[in-house]
Formats: sequence, structure tokens, C-alpha cells
Amino acid sequence: MKARIHITLKNGVLDPQGKAIETTLSHLGFAGVGDVRQGKYIELELDETDREKAHATVDAMCSQLLANTVIENYAIEIE
Amino acid sequence: MKARIHITLKNGVLDPQGKAIETTLSHLGFAGVGDVRQGKYIELELDETDREKAHATVDAMCSQLLANTVIENYAIEIE
Repeated sequence: MKARIHITLKNGVLDPQGKAIETTLSHLGFAGVGDVRQGKYIELELDETDREKAHATVDAMCSQLLANTVIENYAIEIE
Repeated sequence: MKARIHITLKNGVLDPQGKAIETTLSHLGFAGVGDVRQGKYIELELDETDREKAHATVDAMCSQLLANTVIENYAIEIE
């Protein structure tokens, strides 16, 4: 099964990368752009065939390694 | 309008971050994990109200700044 994981900074956590993108877009002439947030996107293949087990496994991966749950949220899609 | 952008490495391009995640997951005891690829995920707000114009604008942002089109693909969702 394929898992797709989105890791994003929680609301209220400063996002310097997002700010840098916003500033640079404005310098390039793109007007009306706001609230830029940059996160991570991870795809992986699992041997697991059970959807719920796969979700639970990926959830454990996120909390143990992939996301810093103090400042980041994560969302998991299994397909 | 809100735009969501996924930037991923093209197939065949080495992904050292993905490899590092794969190795570490295996060391943590997660078996059967393969083909880990890490990409970027960017969210932004646009003042634009026309869906097609918004898509074209974000497409220009990606090719000019956000993605390195030599080694990366990007996908845009407007909502």
C-alpha cells in the first residue's frame, strides 16, 4: 500500500521558509500572495495489506520519527 | 483562493533524505517499508478569484521560484 504524509507547522508556529517564499514572490512581481506555509510531503510503500494496520503503522512512524509533534501536525492518506 | 503545491523529485533522481528516512525506519523496527521519497508541500493564499488565472499564476511561481524543474515535478491544487 502507498502512504502519503503531509507534515505542516502548527498554527502560530513561525515559518521562516514560508516568509522567505512570500517575500521573494513579492519581489518577483507576484502581488496578492499571503499566508505562505511550507511543509513536508513524504510518500512511502508498505508491504502491509490491511488499511487500518497500515494507517496505525504510519501514525507510529510519524510520532516516532517523521514529525516533531510539539510544533508540527501530520496527516496520513493510505491508498 | 487557497493553492496547495506538491513538489517532488522526478523518478530516477536520487533522494538522500528519503533514503535516510527509510534506513532509520528500518532501524526503529518498521519492516516492509520501501520507496520512501520526500518532497515539499506549500500552501498559500491568493487574492485572485478566477480559478484558471490562479492556476496560471501558481504555475508561474513554481517554474520561476518554487521548483527546480530540472529535477523536480510539481502539482497544483486550487480550492
